[in-house]
Amino acid sequence: MVLAVDVMGFENPIDEAIKACRDFVRKNKDVTIILVGKKESIIKHLKKNDEFEILDAKDEIKMDDNPLFIRNKKESSMYKAVELVANDKADGVLSAGNTSCYVAITYMLLKRFNKISKVAFMPWIPTRYKKGFNMLDCGANKIVNQNDLVDFAIMADLYNKKVRKIKNPKIGLINLGTEDQKGLDYLIEANKILKNTKEINYVGFIEPRYLLEEIVDVAIADGFTGNITLKTLEGTAKSISNALKDEFKKPWNFLGFVLSMCALLSLKKKFDYKNNAGAFVVGLQKIALKTHGSADYKQFYSSLRMLRDTVKSNIINDFKEKFN
Amino acid sequence: MVLAVDVMGFENPIDEAIKACRDFVRKNKDVTIILVGKKESIIKHLKKNDEFEILDAKDEIKMDDNPLFIRNKKESSMYKAVELVANDKADGVLSAGNTSCYVAITYMLLKRFNKISKVAFMPWIPTRYKKGFNMLDCGANKIVNQNDLVDFAIMADLYNKKVRKIKNPKIGLINLGTEDQKGLDYLIEANKILKNTKEINYVGFIEPRYLLEEIVDVAIADGFTGNITLKTLEGTAKSISNALKDEFKKPWNFLGFVLSMCALLSLKKKFDYKNNAGAFVVGLQKIALKTHGSADYKQFYSSLRMLRDTVKSNIINDFKEKFN
Repeated sequence: MVLAVDVMGFENPIDEAIKACRDFVRKNKDVTIILVGKKESIIKHLKKNDEFEILDAKDEIKMDDNPLFIRNKKESSMYKAVELVANDKADGVLSAGNTSCYVAITYMLLKRFNKISKVAFMPWIPTRYKKGFNMLDCGANKIVNQNDLVDFAIMADLYNKKVRKIKNPKIGLINLGTEDQKGLDYLIEANKILKNTKEINYVGFIEPRYLLEEIVDVAIADGFTGNITLKTLEGTAKSISNALKDEFKKPWNFLGFVLSMCALLSLKKKFDYKNNAGAFVVGLQKIALKTHGSADYKQFYSSLRMLRDTVKSNIINDFKEKFN
Repeated sequence: MVLAVDVMGFENPIDEAIKACRDFVRKNKDVTIILVGKKESIIKHLKKNDEFEILDAKDEIKMDDNPLFIRNKKESSMYKAVELVANDKADGVLSAGNTSCYVAITYMLLKRFNKISKVAFMPWIPTRYKKGFNMLDCGANKIVNQNDLVDFAIMADLYNKKVRKIKNPKIGLINLGTEDQKGLDYLIEANKILKNTKEINYVGFIEPRYLLEEIVDVAIADGFTGNITLKTLEGTAKSISNALKDEFKKPWNFLGFVLSMCALLSLKKKFDYKNNAGAFVVGLQKIALKTHGSADYKQFYSSLRMLRDTVKSNIINDFKEKFN
């Protein structure tokens, strides 16, 4: 299996990506990695025994680049990495760069399935009892209709069965309340269609207040709502965690802090998104994953694992059967 | 000052409301309260020295009642309490009942200002450094346009200046990102207008991930987004807090828990919404506040304080000058 990894355009030193790739290919003998980026930068970080292929890219997509102008970015590492998959020289691609540009480039080069009209961005989010859930769409589209939401549900269902190995995954649609008549019109319509989609285990509308309680394996939303929900979740968790740190920094809480380390670390582990840091661009004819712009070694490593698992699962063939 | 309090239709025993009213009038000699609800139920909980007026209501609005049928609910405590304000027999009204029905009844009886086309539901949300912020609209409308968002901003600005006594309140518009071209069309338009609205201190788009960091005093959103954001915030905080409790219940963490009590209580206090539990229905010609369906003594009490402060501030006259 060949994986293409864009090692430019994220916030951390390039070494975080290369180290993860090194450890990953050492542990997974069936995997070859093509590092895509500025050759002179990459070479500096290589070790003697490294067996990477390197694809030199003169340009780089920055975090503030506009997805409307990606056609001018054909020499960028992101574009070239995705192109490897488009030309069947790699089985999957990973990048930690600009999300909007990544969605635009993968959409342009990897093409969507014939029978769907929107692709979706699907991260994994940790929950209270460690199982986590997938949420989609988290920002690939601004506007979707009821049929797009149904497509998202069916694709996420297949992904959860084949890649996450979850039997009968529970799928919910994010809304203000659980009553059938609540919320925006296209949600009410999608809810009706999903209730009649026998192939999936649709559990109805879900309120975002219960997302971390593991009531679903998949939460469906339009790209705007999904992104807002994701950012609110992440930010709230971060603010509370920082507020707790503030308290424990006070000298009179020092002993309590020391004796609570075990509880705090266990809590941190439960809500650790770094162990499943890859977001899948669902709906494309080929496999593309994205990790955070602030990705570190651990996040690159777990994303590579998710990328390998996705390629291995052969899920693209199931998608093709269903949607081409 | 006369306040009308609907004491029916919420999840806790009626006594939580009545006790809060009793303590509130004892401490605020300028306030008289009219309790609205089933007289026989109210009377059971009264004490000798209580000086409430009671308005008997035979009917009650339930949590699952549909706001479309409020015209059949004229004998309900909620309807009658709001009517007291509509007929100038009270200066403000408080209820802990069904939010959708409350918004519908107040909208129908208290009328909106002539120059605005939507009212908004505006709760207060606690933040990391205790100051908190107002978010609106949190669910009075499903759909709004750019001009409604601007109206919300101006009204919340006045409220923050006059009632919360904040000088030059910072106002932000919730969006996916902070760049001017990001997000849905009506947000992009509203952002342009708000930037040219000199009377308010508009700080631009804000990502919901920073809401608890006190970057704004007011966060503006459409009713759907605001409600989703609110529910995600509340739910995430609750899930994390419960996960932390789970950890501290483990026997080997007991000592750590005991010695962390001070830190944990301080954290709890910081994020305590119960001390400002009233949400204002902004845009009405008269004053209506709503508290949570699960309100207890503390939430009723703080909502009464907010209701008194709002009446006292005379803010309705400012609104009338501006919007009638």
